[in-house]
Amino acid sequence: MQMVLSELIVGQQPSGEPAKVPLIRFKNGDGPRVYIQANIHGAEIQGNAVIERFLQLCRDNAPKGNFVIVPMANPIGINQKSGEFTLGRFDPISGDNWNRQYHFDADAIRAFAQQNIYTPENRVKAAFQQLLLQQLNHRLQSPWGLKTGQQMATSLQRLATEADIVLDLHTGPISDRHLYVPEFARHQAKRFNIPLNIIMPADFGGALDEAAFSPWWQLSQTFKRLGRDFPIMVEAFTLELGSQELLNPSQAQQDALGIASYLEQHGCWDDGTHQPEVVTQHACLLKDYRSLYSPSGGQVEYLGELGQPLIQGEPIARIWHYHKLGQTGPIHEDVTLPCDAIPVLHFASANAQQGTELYKVLTNTFPL
Amino acid sequence: MQMVLSELIVGQQPSGEPAKVPLIRFKNGDGPRVYIQANIHGAEIQGNAVIERFLQLCRDNAPKGNFVIVPMANPIGINQKSGEFTLGRFDPISGDNWNRQYHFDADAIRAFAQQNIYTPENRVKAAFQQLLLQQLNHRLQSPWGLKTGQQMATSLQRLATEADIVLDLHTGPISDRHLYVPEFARHQAKRFNIPLNIIMPADFGGALDEAAFSPWWQLSQTFKRLGRDFPIMVEAFTLELGSQELLNPSQAQQDALGIASYLEQHGCWDDGTHQPEVVTQHACLLKDYRSLYSPSGGQVEYLGELGQPLIQGEPIARIWHYHKLGQTGPIHEDVTLPCDAIPVLHFASANAQQGTELYKVLTNTFPL
Amino acid sequence: MQMVLSELIVGQQPSGEPAKVPLIRFKNGDGPRVYIQANIHGAEIQGNAVIERFLQLCRDNAPKGNFVIVPMANPIGINQKSGEFTLGRFDPISGDNWNRQYHFDADAIRAFAQQNIYTPENRVKAAFQQLLLQQLNHRLQSPWGLKTGQQMATSLQRLATEADIVLDLHTGPISDRHLYVPEFARHQAKRFNIPLNIIMPADFGGALDEAAFSPWWQLSQTFKRLGRDFPIMVEAFTLELGSQELLNPSQAQQDALGIASYLEQHGCWDDGTHQPEVVTQHACLLKDYRSLYSPSGGQVEYLGELGQPLIQGEPIARIWHYHKLGQTGPIHEDVTLPCDAIPVLHFASANAQQGTELYKVLTNTFPL
Amino acid sequence: MQMVLSELIVGQQPSGEPAKVPLIRFKNGDGPRVYIQANIHGAEIQGNAVIERFLQLCRDNAPKGNFVIVPMANPIGINQKSGEFTLGRFDPISGDNWNRQYHFDADAIRAFAQQNIYTPENRVKAAFQQLLLQQLNHRLQSPWGLKTGQQMATSLQRLATEADIVLDLHTGPISDRHLYVPEFARHQAKRFNIPLNIIMPADFGGALDEAAFSPWWQLSQTFKRLGRDFPIMVEAFTLELGSQELLNPSQAQQDALGIASYLEQHGCWDDGTHQPEVVTQHACLLKDYRSLYSPSGGQVEYLGELGQPLIQGEPIARIWHYHKLGQTGPIHEDVTLPCDAIPVLHFASANAQQGTELYKVLTNTFPL
Repeated sequence: MQMVLSELIVGQQPSGEPAKVPLIRFKNGDGPRVYIQANIHGAEIQGNAVIERFLQLCRDNAPKGNFVIVPMANPIGINQKSGEFTLGRFDPISGDNWNRQYHFDADAIRAFAQQNIYTPENRVKAAFQQLLLQQLNHRLQSPWGLKTGQQMATSLQRLATEADIVLDLHTGPISDRHLYVPEFARHQAKRFNIPLNIIMPADFGGALDEAAFSPWWQLSQTFKRLGRDFPIMVEAFTLELGSQELLNPSQAQQDALGIASYLEQHGCWDDGTHQPEVVTQHACLLKDYRSLYSPSGGQVEYLGELGQPLIQGEPIARIWHYHKLGQTGPIHEDVTLPCDAIPVLHFASANAQQGTELYKVLTNTFPL
Repeated sequence: MQMVLSELIVGQQPSGEPAKVPLIRFKNGDGPRVYIQANIHGAEIQGNAVIERFLQLCRDNAPKGNFVIVPMANPIGINQKSGEFTLGRFDPISGDNWNRQYHFDADAIRAFAQQNIYTPENRVKAAFQQLLLQQLNHRLQSPWGLKTGQQMATSLQRLATEADIVLDLHTGPISDRHLYVPEFARHQAKRFNIPLNIIMPADFGGALDEAAFSPWWQLSQTFKRLGRDFPIMVEAFTLELGSQELLNPSQAQQDALGIASYLEQHGCWDDGTHQPEVVTQHACLLKDYRSLYSPSGGQVEYLGELGQPLIQGEPIARIWHYHKLGQTGPIHEDVTLPCDAIPVLHFASANAQQGTELYKVLTNTFPL
Repeated sequence: MQMVLSELIVGQQPSGEPAKVPLIRFKNGDGPRVYIQANIHGAEIQGNAVIERFLQLCRDNAPKGNFVIVPMANPIGINQKSGEFTLGRFDPISGDNWNRQYHFDADAIRAFAQQNIYTPENRVKAAFQQLLLQQLNHRLQSPWGLKTGQQMATSLQRLATEADIVLDLHTGPISDRHLYVPEFARHQAKRFNIPLNIIMPADFGGALDEAAFSPWWQLSQTFKRLGRDFPIMVEAFTLELGSQELLNPSQAQQDALGIASYLEQHGCWDDGTHQPEVVTQHACLLKDYRSLYSPSGGQVEYLGELGQPLIQGEPIARIWHYHKLGQTGPIHEDVTLPCDAIPVLHFASANAQQGTELYKVLTNTFPL
Repeated sequence: MQMVLSELIVGQQPSGEPAKVPLIRFKNGDGPRVYIQANIHGAEIQGNAVIERFLQLCRDNAPKGNFVIVPMANPIGINQKSGEFTLGRFDPISGDNWNRQYHFDADAIRAFAQQNIYTPENRVKAAFQQLLLQQLNHRLQSPWGLKTGQQMATSLQRLATEADIVLDLHTGPISDRHLYVPEFARHQAKRFNIPLNIIMPADFGGALDEAAFSPWWQLSQTFKRLGRDFPIMVEAFTLELGSQELLNPSQAQQDALGIASYLEQHGCWDDGTHQPEVVTQHACLLKDYRSLYSPSGGQVEYLGELGQPLIQGEPIARIWHYHKLGQTGPIHEDVTLPCDAIPVLHFASANAQQGTELYKVLTNTFPL
């Protein structure tokens, strides 16, 4: 199977150097259009390792479909160091999160649905995709220019908008593997074989997964209000595949198998071709995916084990106040949660301010 | 006149050090409750100099009213250096803008207005203020904690919520003096004597001025829909008093006079007590306050003079591409705007990425 | 045993907040003067945990001697975040390493030794300590002021200069425990029970351990050249107790025992009172403690296990070039060392530039 | 005159992107070999503008000699933003100043001089240049790799080592134009027409100018000790051409004329071809070029005018302590110098810590 390589220019640095993103394309027979992206946050490199393993699976056994693969999606963020670490979560100039710059203007949906109430499904799909691309092109051609992160995101989003399936590979800070699942695709999501799952509504918040599925979900809902049943034609997921600043090749192999297993449901391979190790899967609703903020500033022992259920009242973190060393009495405080929870990720440093996001946890969990 | 000094704890640093904000309170006879804050963005120190001059005016001639003055409002941001500059515009951990963390939950307004449709104005005012304070207290008492910037903002906002007049002193990067004016207070705004003015709608976007006036404006609008005329009881403004990282004492004196002159309208002093130098005042609507993003990466000559009208087609910036040095032909490109405009501020560095916000400009201007 | 707590002011922040360091002092009977400091690099917090455990040992069984304990020694560095991590290794303004600001002017030694060639040992000790303190006081009183890091370092150094034993607690980035040992104290160093050891010459490079022992070592050498045998009266060590940004309380207990066991040699407790778990100890000379710099930019798998001997030619790191994904042929390169080595620490991020310090290793090792 | 353009690779970024520096070469008849570099510190872009003007002078009137021109010398530093500013003074990972990474091993000089005591001047020059290049090549080929900044510096230094004249174009933070002059080239330096001048000894501190002239100066001194008069064959200067983060094209024209006028002394053009505006020139020895560190943390008014002599006792800066606002009595302190001085540059921010370098000044000045 022939992999075609090219580069996408997503910006230009002060030095004049273009910000270049590598693109890999291949296709084979009839199958879905699949878009897979990794590393839009500069420190979250594990997705590239998963792509490396996934490409190997594709070489070993050519999948059906049309693939666009985008590793190393953010050349500005990847190169942005501050101390030893990669400061690639937000634009260092503006503070804008690189994964909140995608675009969707919901205002056009109602008119579009009304005009296309009797249009055949396939033609609706093509026309709506066209509409979304026009929105992006219009944005890119503004006489006022476009913000750095918007330029990058919109350039990538043009590729993603042509896909039926969009997978955006991320990691957390210190993190167990978890998955953002649009509610309508909950059944399909199981095959990724990711232990912790967050079920999302149809809203758009600026991330790539939402930018990919929200328009189609909202179109479906709008048609429904007009009396037409119309399927949601795009599935999109954000996969959080472990911790930032780490390469874990053996876990990458498992997650490549999970992605392949998911894609089998869409006909890319025969069902059962890939067999990732099965894990127990927990889920909760997005509104029940909670952040715990530090009640004080200090040095943190992270007691809550990632992925392991924690009973209300059990300490999840111990905050040491070493500036009180030498005082009699305890110089630490234990932090508990107001309900049962499963820790998903924790802060990457043991040095926390009051208000630092110490943990994110699933609450009110249920099996996926 | 007695000034009472105290400190407000708005957070705790990893070292254990509390983040302390100085408070100055004084009162004298009957008059409005006035809240003035400066330096919530760490590099924007000029507001402190204006407060210094304003306190001198108050010492020279005691104003009527009840004053809470908060200089140096963000001890975390003020101390956050990166290279020589103060990285105080956003939380260095999360990228969150320190001035987008204030709180307002509009959902409660409709029920409140219905319950108080016949309540006398003064009692409505007290009850609504109480409601807003309860929202803030509830937020501060979350068992999940509160994010660093929210903790700081909510602590300050509790003080501002008790005021009739809220002034938030900022600066731009390299900037002419400009003012954010809620549409309903347009007439009063003239007395600040600030040359460039942006007229705002009733929306809430997370900044302090909006957090102060939006609830009252929306309450007034809700009452109106219920058939009652109810005044907007709080005025709030964001004053952008020049450039960051600069102290300009003589301009501070002028802006202290402008604030005093504005307050004369609310009875703090007799009208005409303070006479700032008069300037020509331009204004535009918030939707016409536009950003120009750099069309390429390079080194920038800022040609558009701040505060001076620029004709469509005149170059506002020249971007040099020094990586092309030695090539024949021009190595710079001139950037123009698609319409007439008045430059308000420009980027603080001559080193720009593609997509850097080069300028912000007023368009479709009119006299204030 | 009474612990006396106080604070040392080592600077002032832009906000006006003094930079305060907690001090703990206690004494008991006759014994050495001991100075223990931790966390001069902001991210290196494990030393505080070791101090916490060490104080508990002291409470359980009062040591003989005079102790000054300084946890959280750098309040500026501890609070300096950039992204999630603590950017506390160098001054964010100047780039100066906080642990290269200590002072020692060797020029005065020769004259001092000549003047004191017949002075009794004890009086030499007192006079030389006085000379060193005068150098520091003179530095602190310069009419030109003192650089931020020098101010902090010199203030701390005044305390350390009064001690017979100086222990500076650090960590590496991702690091095994290791120890900097002045050659003359090699025998004593064994009792710290730290697996990897670097043997240092008498030179002064600006770090605290050198600032403590170099003057006395050079004095001893100078006296020797003048024909007098004079003991080296101060022992000082830099202990690197694991990885930055981590708290490890159980390891802290072991290292507190190691410090106590070392101090038993100086009479603080009876020999054998404390029994840390025994480890195998490797050592090499400082000139054989080598850095490996990345031969290219890319994403790094750290293959060399910390503390485990590695044979010349075995890969220590694999650098992935994910921008080449989709190309046929390998997209990674394996890095080897030109000799046998024991990896001590590695870079904290998997994102490396060409020239990033990937590993530091012991070479030409021998038993301590 | 034909300008030949190429690129020098000086490193590789984590993204895989090579760090590329543009090179411009041209030659014409007999004349010196001239190396001009700009922007090794990322924020110091004015040197590129000066090169742009200088190339225009060369196009207008072809100079004699062999030129290598290197604008935009540090593509990593130029692209390193933190907030709006360019954090390009030091490596963001290590804190290493990009202009302290050049190499020179003085140990080889004595043997070289002894071996060549009777070698003719021209052959000594060629052989010594060869020796220096070998040192650099050896450094670049280390099996342990080379640190990022050393890799970049050594790559550039190989080009500079072939030159007779080396000019390194910098700027200060907020700065008047000033020049570092090796003592032996003091007379020639006048023609740059730069107002403030610092006279340097033969020492090597890691900067490019020193790396260029120190070996030759030390060689000359070593020959002298061996009884041979040997000229210093390389002149090198660091030109500080104003403030960072600024482009000033009209000043660039003046400084291009100054460089051309200096080069006339070496035969590049006929004497008097270029006529920069003449300025008064002050100078002092490097040991008298002093830094003033802030005696406290606070907000700074910079009172000392750059380039204007200041009498001992006159305030050079006023530090405001706005955290004391509302207190009676003054809340600022005025800072004075212990002697007469001429301010050269000041800190770029009005937010200072205790110990921040507020000003650098010439003292004990004399005419150049």
